Amino acid sequence: MRILVLGGDGYLGWPTAMHFSSEGDEVMVVDNFSKRQIELNFGIEPLDSIATLHRRVALWKEVTGRKIHLHVGDLLNHRFIYKVLEEFEPEAILHYAEQPSAPYSMWTREYAVYTQHNNVIGTLNLLFAIKRHCPEAHLVKLGTMGEHGRLAIDRNEGYSINRPSGRTDGVSYPQSPGSFYHLSKIHDAYNINFTCQNWGLRATDLAQGVVYGFETDHTRLHPELRTSFHYDDIFGTVINRFLVQAVAGSPLTVYGQGQKPRSFLNLLDTIKFVELAVENPPRPGEFRVFNQFTEVFTVNQLAEMVREAARTNGIEVSIQHLENPRHEPEELPYPVKPAKVSELGLSPHLLSAGLITQMLDYIAGAAARINPEVFLPRIKWRQDSKMTVMD
Amino acid sequence: MRILVLGGDGYLGWPTAMHFSSEGDEVMVVDNFSKRQIELNFGIEPLDSIATLHRRVALWKEVTGRKIHLHVGDLLNHRFIYKVLEEFEPEAILHYAEQPSAPYSMWTREYAVYTQHNNVIGTLNLLFAIKRHCPEAHLVKLGTMGEHGRLAIDRNEGYSINRPSGRTDGVSYPQSPGSFYHLSKIHDAYNINFTCQNWGLRATDLAQGVVYGFETDHTRLHPELRTSFHYDDIFGTVINRFLVQAVAGSPLTVYGQGQKPRSFLNLLDTIKFVELAVENPPRPGEFRVFNQFTEVFTVNQLAEMVREAARTNGIEVSIQHLENPRHEPEELPYPVKPAKVSELGLSPHLLSAGLITQMLDYIAGAAARINPEVFLPRIKWRQDSKMTVMD
Repeated sequence: MRILVLGGDGYLGWPTAMHFSSEGDEVMVVDNFSKRQIELNFGIEPLDSIATLHRRVALWKEVTGRKIHLHVGDLLNHRFIYKVLEEFEPEAILHYAEQPSAPYSMWTREYAVYTQHNNVIGTLNLLFAIKRHCPEAHLVKLGTMGEHGRLAIDRNEGYSINRPSGRTDGVSYPQSPGSFYHLSKIHDAYNINFTCQNWGLRATDLAQGVVYGFETDHTRLHPELRTSFHYDDIFGTVINRFLVQAVAGSPLTVYGQGQKPRSFLNLLDTIKFVELAVENPPRPGEFRVFNQFTEVFTVNQLAEMVREAARTNGIEVSIQHLENPRHEPEELPYPVKPAKVSELGLSPHLLSAGLITQMLDYIAGAAARINPEVFLPRIKWRQDSKMTVMD
Repeated sequence: MRILVLGGDGYLGWPTAMHFSSEGDEVMVVDNFSKRQIELNFGIEPLDSIATLHRRVALWKEVTGRKIHLHVGDLLNHRFIYKVLEEFEPEAILHYAEQPSAPYSMWTREYAVYTQHNNVIGTLNLLFAIKRHCPEAHLVKLGTMGEHGRLAIDRNEGYSINRPSGRTDGVSYPQSPGSFYHLSKIHDAYNINFTCQNWGLRATDLAQGVVYGFETDHTRLHPELRTSFHYDDIFGTVINRFLVQAVAGSPLTVYGQGQKPRSFLNLLDTIKFVELAVENPPRPGEFRVFNQFTEVFTVNQLAEMVREAARTNGIEVSIQHLENPRHEPEELPYPVKPAKVSELGLSPHLLSAGLITQMLDYIAGAAARINPEVFLPRIKWRQDSKMTVMD
């Protein structure tokens, strides 16, 4: 199958591209390196340095004999993406090419506007390009569970309600997003759903929890084939931050009371979810939403798990509660339905003490490169914060 | 009260500005004339030529002695709108400054992107400017009933659901928009709602039906104080098209079976609705949605009403059904709840035979300027249309 990975330089894009390539699919990666630019602007780095995408693609060929095509360009340039689709004629398009940081989108007016412009208009250009050049292609788009971050009612997967007539109409689950980034995902979902209904495109929205883990069978083939591990306040996740704080002997910093449940999944499982979605495409005109996660923990539970695992490694760390920089309710019920896609055959990799220990060991090997300056949140969500006046 | 009218050159913006000025409010109008630019690009004109905004503001001063402030600029230029809010310190902001045409937004990729970029980013800049310079100001934003165009379930006003805990959370009524323009309105509503929740802004979204009528006490003061009347396929409404077609002796063109109900209101009532919303602002942090219309007709009923009124004027016209250029279901139930705002004291101006006759008489006086070439729809919604390949 011809598979196009947009955002192929990223944490998820790169291991996903290697996975499909290893399966014998014809894979093309596209990136504009905008996330690397933001890293440079803020002076933040992943724990281990990441080779250029050109280098990784060349190395992949050396190590496996398989070719991954590479094009550098921006979805905001519609001529670029039209040309890519015209020439490559993808059958599946995995769209990771969005500004992915909620805190970044909340930092200033400029970054909020950049996030919505980049994500919404880039995706609009992609939709028009698909209509023109490959209307049968299956668009797989990463959404986020955070789109629904603040609601307390059952969230069903999918975009459908029953009409009195017996017909089904597409509508979204009511959403209450947590940042301008999450809002951009909602805007995208509405735009994509509309083009499915009006033009007969087909798309899957994978509403994903927090992904953890950084190793796959393919990243292990060579140190320079690794994917990025961010623990900073812009691109890092709560679990990565805890792991690195533990190795650094710093307190694990929980925002607010830490009783809000959040959904998680292993990097290996997000790749498997995507594969299952690609193997089981929706019908033309259909827009599907799948919840994509395997486990739910409160942040407190997660902190305890990391503290316990660190203790068995001989590290004693404390847990420190900070004022929550985000504006979100505490103690939210989390009655999310399990992912439909798991019925298609996923055996999840759960977050065991053994896996946490393994990640701690890996991070300990890179301890000299840990920068504790990026542990603390610099962005606050509320008007009353001094941090939000930089607009 | 200091009232800022964004989009003050437009069909609604101008008579609304005159209304508040006549009431003794301090009014400022802002426009970038982007709608006039689109008119030029397509070679379309309102039935009567419209004086420049500078001229109308000067004339208003001559005729009434009242000053309306005027600033020319673009919401996409955030420095412009920051400066306007800093200097004028408005207490209410009436936001009409958006690309308002659904067909335009469906024409090409370029126009779809223009519509979403202009509307969403312009409104984002406005929200950040309000946060910075006048966080107490009441934002009144025009939404549209078309946001909900394709759903068959009860649509309640407002953005709230009850939580099990007894708290109320803000969520939108499930939406199913009919065009990239309508999508931009949904994106706006989500963004505005978020800033109310997070920054404590206050806003009212007036989900408005089709507005008809072109005369107010103030437009009648001088011919050059009139507001625009569009009957073309880009900015015209179904009712305006029928009126002009009747005067021209052309068939009234109904798209599809014409059994879809649509909501309507008089220009006088939309001004009154806005005034009631301004006089009764939401509390800080609240985002209200009001349905804003006074009557519901099917397009067939509307065509019959115009045909009847034309007959009494001695004009016989036929009704012609054309293939629907839009993608929308026929025979949609329309269980919309009546507008809450009407409880605040609105005596609606309904669409009587007398009013239709009056409008037909006015249009007959301008019959020589009717351009029948713009009666027919040039844009089709579906992929299978030849009209959609100009992207």
